Amino acid sequence: MCAVVGVINSKNASTYAYYALFAMQHRGQEASGISVSDGKNIKTIKAKGEVSQIFNPHNLQTLQGEIAIGHNRYSTAGNSSLDDAQPIAANCVLGDIALAHNGNLVNKEEIRNQLIQDGAIFQTHMDTENVVHLIARSKKENLQDRFIESLNNCIGAYCFVLASKDKLYVARDPYGVRPLSLGRLKDGGYIVASETCAFDLIEAEFIRDVKPGELIIFTQGNDQFESIQLEAKTPRICAFEYVYFARPDSIVEGKSVYEIRKKMGESLARKFSHKADFVVPVPDSGVSAAIGFAQYLKIPLEMAIVRNHYVGRTFIEPTQELRNLKVKLKLNPMRKVLEGKEIVVIDDSIVRGTTSKKIVSLLRAAGAKKIHLAVACPEIKFPDIYGIDTPTFEELISANKNIEEVRKHVEADSLTFLSIEELVGSIGNERQYSLISFDGDYFIKN
Amino acid sequence: MCAVVGVINSKNASTYAYYALFAMQHRGQEASGISVSDGKNIKTIKAKGEVSQIFNPHNLQTLQGEIAIGHNRYSTAGNSSLDDAQPIAANCVLGDIALAHNGNLVNKEEIRNQLIQDGAIFQTHMDTENVVHLIARSKKENLQDRFIESLNNCIGAYCFVLASKDKLYVARDPYGVRPLSLGRLKDGGYIVASETCAFDLIEAEFIRDVKPGELIIFTQGNDQFESIQLEAKTPRICAFEYVYFARPDSIVEGKSVYEIRKKMGESLARKFSHKADFVVPVPDSGVSAAIGFAQYLKIPLEMAIVRNHYVGRTFIEPTQELRNLKVKLKLNPMRKVLEGKEIVVIDDSIVRGTTSKKIVSLLRAAGAKKIHLAVACPEIKFPDIYGIDTPTFEELISANKNIEEVRKHVEADSLTFLSIEELVGSIGNERQYSLISFDGDYFIKN
Amino acid sequence: MCAVVGVINSKNASTYAYYALFAMQHRGQEASGISVSDGKNIKTIKAKGEVSQIFNPHNLQTLQGEIAIGHNRYSTAGNSSLDDAQPIAANCVLGDIALAHNGNLVNKEEIRNQLIQDGAIFQTHMDTENVVHLIARSKKENLQDRFIESLNNCIGAYCFVLASKDKLYVARDPYGVRPLSLGRLKDGGYIVASETCAFDLIEAEFIRDVKPGELIIFTQGNDQFESIQLEAKTPRICAFEYVYFARPDSIVEGKSVYEIRKKMGESLARKFSHKADFVVPVPDSGVSAAIGFAQYLKIPLEMAIVRNHYVGRTFIEPTQELRNLKVKLKLNPMRKVLEGKEIVVIDDSIVRGTTSKKIVSLLRAAGAKKIHLAVACPEIKFPDIYGIDTPTFEELISANKNIEEVRKHVEADSLTFLSIEELVGSIGNERQYSLISFDGDYFIKN
Amino acid sequence: MCAVVGVINSKNASTYAYYALFAMQHRGQEASGISVSDGKNIKTIKAKGEVSQIFNPHNLQTLQGEIAIGHNRYSTAGNSSLDDAQPIAANCVLGDIALAHNGNLVNKEEIRNQLIQDGAIFQTHMDTENVVHLIARSKKENLQDRFIESLNNCIGAYCFVLASKDKLYVARDPYGVRPLSLGRLKDGGYIVASETCAFDLIEAEFIRDVKPGELIIFTQGNDQFESIQLEAKTPRICAFEYVYFARPDSIVEGKSVYEIRKKMGESLARKFSHKADFVVPVPDSGVSAAIGFAQYLKIPLEMAIVRNHYVGRTFIEPTQELRNLKVKLKLNPMRKVLEGKEIVVIDDSIVRGTTSKKIVSLLRAAGAKKIHLAVACPEIKFPDIYGIDTPTFEELISANKNIEEVRKHVEADSLTFLSIEELVGSIGNERQYSLISFDGDYFIKN
Repeated sequence: MCAVVGVINSKNASTYAYYALFAMQHRGQEASGISVSDGKNIKTIKAKGEVSQIFNPHNLQTLQGEIAIGHNRYSTAGNSSLDDAQPIAANCVLGDIALAHNGNLVNKEEIRNQLIQDGAIFQTHMDTENVVHLIARSKKENLQDRFIESLNNCIGAYCFVLASKDKLYVARDPYGVRPLSLGRLKDGGYIVASETCAFDLIEAEFIRDVKPGELIIFTQGNDQFESIQLEAKTPRICAFEYVYFARPDSIVEGKSVYEIRKKMGESLARKFSHKADFVVPVPDSGVSAAIGFAQYLKIPLEMAIVRNHYVGRTFIEPTQELRNLKVKLKLNPMRKVLEGKEIVVIDDSIVRGTTSKKIVSLLRAAGAKKIHLAVACPEIKFPDIYGIDTPTFEELISANKNIEEVRKHVEADSLTFLSIEELVGSIGNERQYSLISFDGDYFIKN
Repeated sequence: MCAVVGVINSKNASTYAYYALFAMQHRGQEASGISVSDGKNIKTIKAKGEVSQIFNPHNLQTLQGEIAIGHNRYSTAGNSSLDDAQPIAANCVLGDIALAHNGNLVNKEEIRNQLIQDGAIFQTHMDTENVVHLIARSKKENLQDRFIESLNNCIGAYCFVLASKDKLYVARDPYGVRPLSLGRLKDGGYIVASETCAFDLIEAEFIRDVKPGELIIFTQGNDQFESIQLEAKTPRICAFEYVYFARPDSIVEGKSVYEIRKKMGESLARKFSHKADFVVPVPDSGVSAAIGFAQYLKIPLEMAIVRNHYVGRTFIEPTQELRNLKVKLKLNPMRKVLEGKEIVVIDDSIVRGTTSKKIVSLLRAAGAKKIHLAVACPEIKFPDIYGIDTPTFEELISANKNIEEVRKHVEADSLTFLSIEELVGSIGNERQYSLISFDGDYFIKN
Repeated sequence: MCAVVGVINSKNASTYAYYALFAMQHRGQEASGISVSDGKNIKTIKAKGEVSQIFNPHNLQTLQGEIAIGHNRYSTAGNSSLDDAQPIAANCVLGDIALAHNGNLVNKEEIRNQLIQDGAIFQTHMDTENVVHLIARSKKENLQDRFIESLNNCIGAYCFVLASKDKLYVARDPYGVRPLSLGRLKDGGYIVASETCAFDLIEAEFIRDVKPGELIIFTQGNDQFESIQLEAKTPRICAFEYVYFARPDSIVEGKSVYEIRKKMGESLARKFSHKADFVVPVPDSGVSAAIGFAQYLKIPLEMAIVRNHYVGRTFIEPTQELRNLKVKLKLNPMRKVLEGKEIVVIDDSIVRGTTSKKIVSLLRAAGAKKIHLAVACPEIKFPDIYGIDTPTFEELISANKNIEEVRKHVEADSLTFLSIEELVGSIGNERQYSLISFDGDYFIKN
Repeated sequence: MCAVVGVINSKNASTYAYYALFAMQHRGQEASGISVSDGKNIKTIKAKGEVSQIFNPHNLQTLQGEIAIGHNRYSTAGNSSLDDAQPIAANCVLGDIALAHNGNLVNKEEIRNQLIQDGAIFQTHMDTENVVHLIARSKKENLQDRFIESLNNCIGAYCFVLASKDKLYVARDPYGVRPLSLGRLKDGGYIVASETCAFDLIEAEFIRDVKPGELIIFTQGNDQFESIQLEAKTPRICAFEYVYFARPDSIVEGKSVYEIRKKMGESLARKFSHKADFVVPVPDSGVSAAIGFAQYLKIPLEMAIVRNHYVGRTFIEPTQELRNLKVKLKLNPMRKVLEGKEIVVIDDSIVRGTTSKKIVSLLRAAGAKKIHLAVACPEIKFPDIYGIDTPTFEELISANKNIEEVRKHVEADSLTFLSIEELVGSIGNERQYSLISFDGDYFIKN
């Protein structure tokens, strides 16, 4: 998971990109960057860290130009080096270009290997660099044709924003797995962003979503943009955007993330067969579903776990006596509310099971008598390969244990998951979704 | 508002103080510090910024010793200089001492003026320094008697933690306006802290609250502590701790802050005479009251305003088009949920009215048809002088406008406050409270 | 001007590279970097700033491996971006490689243009990246043959150090314009470095200079290295290394820089026709020549200009009254010594004439009665293109004014330059030199 | 050793103080600070580190006002904490005052103990704080009388600069042990500074030295200043200022430091009974004396040891093979010049003998055949207590060994010191000096 933004026809292009990245910080805190074209050259500032640490009034002001693209990079284990920040800016036969990418190319190794065989050098570990090479090496005449040819070579889930000296190109994969929306800025310029919450902050007007398989070409100084429909399949937006990734205030493919999470909670409630004194969300990710759950069952919602939002950069100083410190730095259950109670805890998902086990343990220690764990998504049985950093098969607890075994592992009194059908029903039966983590249907294949 | 902590008889005294300050970060982000006694000398690290910025494994490890005190300082307008971090450590006739303070001395100017007349020099702007001087200048023989004499000179609301080379002294004002609790660490040591949420993180066991007018003396290596009851009045804990300051998971004077905030919401609901499609809290401060409000009226609770928790250090780059950016960086209302709805918005308080006005404006822009603003505390008509940084009389909107005028100012469709009686009823009629912001009863006078 | 270092067969490869870069800091303060191969992968740390700012015990320790290369980058006007730090590390068909370069390729634009035409992307502005591309694109089978082929394509002055997972390649241009020496570490490993002063610090034993046109291949774990003589011309080391670049304690092509500078001073003295009370060097660059000058003429040397070595990062706060502040922050002439005296000032060179003019003005203001300026190199009439960042023709004062005009411009009472013959005579008539700045003989042509 | 500066009647008071501190950075790199009075309040910025690290255009601009004092603190072993930066600013009965101090009070413990007995608190370890307390506690009516009374209580060597809201007070001890000079700024204001090199940078005109026992009172807006002669003794400027502390371009008590160091070298030469091929200074501190030595004996001066000026913040990464790394990071002897030679090495002083021993060892390793060490000051047999941080009796090698034993220890072929008479003769027999390090005459006694 990452975030991309593209801005054109705005004197404040880099400032708007900055705010958009800030609004989408939840999609990636590992690294961020902005590239700006001033009509001739492209200048880039990128670094590790959060948007607010990397940019300041001084360096943002050096990014002058009316075309900007930006990127937030999600923290991925192990391999994080400075070079792995985006956008990737390069000088090639068509001049300066810069590219940013949210998604994953399933044939990236083959493309990279082929490029390397053909003499390319890679200065990062990111598949984004593949596409920059493909564009630079294409025999087509102009950037548009080269980008199309490159996209045709890419198999995967992706949203690309590509800046040249005077154009902004935006492309979404044929299935539209990752979200991308188009809006209009108050000053008349255009913006595309992974989530609509970015538009809200800068008062951009939502126009429409970029379509699966669509390539949009914006030209500096031109209010008309061109849309080209490349190969398109039956759309399958990633269900995990609704489950976990997107901010609740974003509208993904026309649907309010918040309202869908509430419906997931309702679906959970519909099948919940135990009795509970009240509903407790794991904050913040379980709150929306918990509201839906509680409203449906008409049992109280209690914020009985408090989240400490200062946790960001806190280090842990080991002292033998303290257990579960990492979770406790973030979450504190309230004994006064929980003591002697039978509760249902709503979380968004169970991945490895580690955190759920600790939360149940903390709630038990805080006096909860019975703890029913209800999870607002199906069992995660398969690694995602379409742009989400999920663990391997071996680490996914539901890939290796059935529900009862997971329940025992996390030491809950009961454990309820959504079924895949209930998940789909919550989002809307009228369309299809990318559900690979749940059903293993790797529909985009190499 | 600030936070204090004191630890004794623990090999990890500074680590526990660090975690306690982290858990109480909400009480002050301006500056923090920890002083540690190693049995001979006192060493202090303090600086501007948040706890997690100031301390790191390396510098925390230099704070070796079994007695530690710590402090979080609340951001106060204008006067913040490096020197104004606590604890204040000083070398005096009794050796090294360090003092930290949460509260405010109403006779601080007189004490300071008298001290200055008597030849004292002040290297900070804090009234904490007054007390260090009083201790140093006392003619009494030992630190205990000097501290008692100094406390007798102080009129105000206070919690002091005082470290010497081998003792920890803890004192609370005669009315017990500011909270202070006593607990036992897992390793057998003692801890005192402004809020019990600090105990939860480090798994300290709550023993009891420090009593109004109580002085507790802990001695290094001695599991027995001595309690001396100095002058005590009818206890009057500050009601604002329940309204706003304390974390919802803290227990203040035996009462769950979360549950009391829910009761305030219920009281509000009881008198709420309008119709609303649902209840919307201003996150995070209005959430607890909104839950109580919604449960009482059996109308849905909707998290229709989303808070961005990354906001900490974000700078604002001015662009002419963007209004209300400062509020919008933190709060985003959801159009999909709000459009065409009649809502009741729950906030914890109205101080200047500026933020409330902006929130109403954002909600209106997001499509809300009718906006009833319900405030989970009474009108704030008087500046606090007992340790809370409230604005002057001139800036307090309710000191200058009646409810209808305030409603017009914030442009809400209706405006409901708690009455003072309802506030007190929510906390509990069986005891008295400091209510100065609401009733102007400055019961601690100079 | 830059510095390169390469180390192999040492467990402390990165530490030795670090010290070598520190010893050669005078060759470039803009950026530095070290790449280390652990036998499989290459890891790089590079950044803007001085060696001692970029590296610390913590990050240096992450550079584990027995092969290291490093680079100091000289500050060049305008174009300094993060990407322009070296080494350039890349993943290519032969695995990870890293390359660092001191020098300049005169056909770099053509190579770059051709590479770009062929589909390459450039992520930096440095010609070093050209060579990485050439290696990656070569059709030859192994790295050695590819590197040789790439070198054959390069026209210019260069010293390259190239690391692969298990080899270190070192190459010097056919004329040997830039210096490069080979040494043996105390732990048995090999080191190559731009200057021998790097060997002194780490007690490496000087073996010999790398020969013009020589390619040396070191293999990890093998004490034998292979030398291949590629195309070689009559050697022409850059005379400016003796004039200005190299540290006086370095031995360049077998000759002590310090002793040669003294000889330049002697040559100047031999033709000096004025009378002077004493000799004053411009510190530190004019000291060696001034000693030779004074010894020859048997007139006293006086350190009448004092240099402030803290000047590094000082900012200048403009106040109207203060003139020449930038020069004065570094240099202060002593009135007590200078007053009423007739002096000869020795500087290493005159480039734009700006600094010389200010120094003469400061000396005059400090009371010197007559100021003879003697410059220990010939008039600089031509821009260098072999790895030195000299100004354009328009900015070079001696390209536009004759000696008398320059004298008038800098307001000296007399002005003496070395002739080219005297310069060559000072270094040694037995061999040839790169003298382009003086004679415009661009002997390496595209 | 430290540096003080005071500025009055200048709109750029803090900027001038900043430049003056920069010029006097050699007198202390541990910490620096500037206090500025704007006519009402005093604002201070101080921190650990060098002047150029602490101040920047932004924070310097916040120091607005026409009176400024500043301080550079010398690195002292062990006890360096944040609080130990100067100036010390305090609010007292006379309003805000700020004080900075170069020197040492020999009765500081007694004053401090008395003050502590009387109830004072100390927030630093510096004797400067004593004087702030004395001023604040004085029964005299005005600041001038209080300062005079306080000075009368101080026994020691000192230069004080004291700022109030509208006055600048400057005081020097009765013997004038530490230097202090008075100058006039280009904008008409006054400046006092420890060394005249500070005047040179900002083009201030030297007026005269502050006299021993003199108190000067400047009033904001008044071009006349008042001079009061307090108790004065036969002046005894510290000889170490000429030997080591002062910059060679400073004029101390009317005498050029550079010229006096040359005379010390001449005195050494006069008694030097060995033969030497040439003279080698230990840079930079031995250069001036070496010039005098070489001129007298008419033997060549060779800069055969090169100093690396980037050494500031370099860390040392331990590798077993490398010896003497700390000295070698700074100093590199040139084999080409030294090999087979008989040399005389000039250093400014021998304190512990450690560095001298390492230098001799490095020179020997670089091929020097015979090494005569000539030291441009007498044997240091006694700890200084007048403001110089010298080691204890036990650590001073000449306090424990005679010349022959020291020679053996440092492994030189011969060792020559100046006699006390020769030192005094070099500076000038017409007046007296503080020579305690050499003769143990602690003439300022408690």
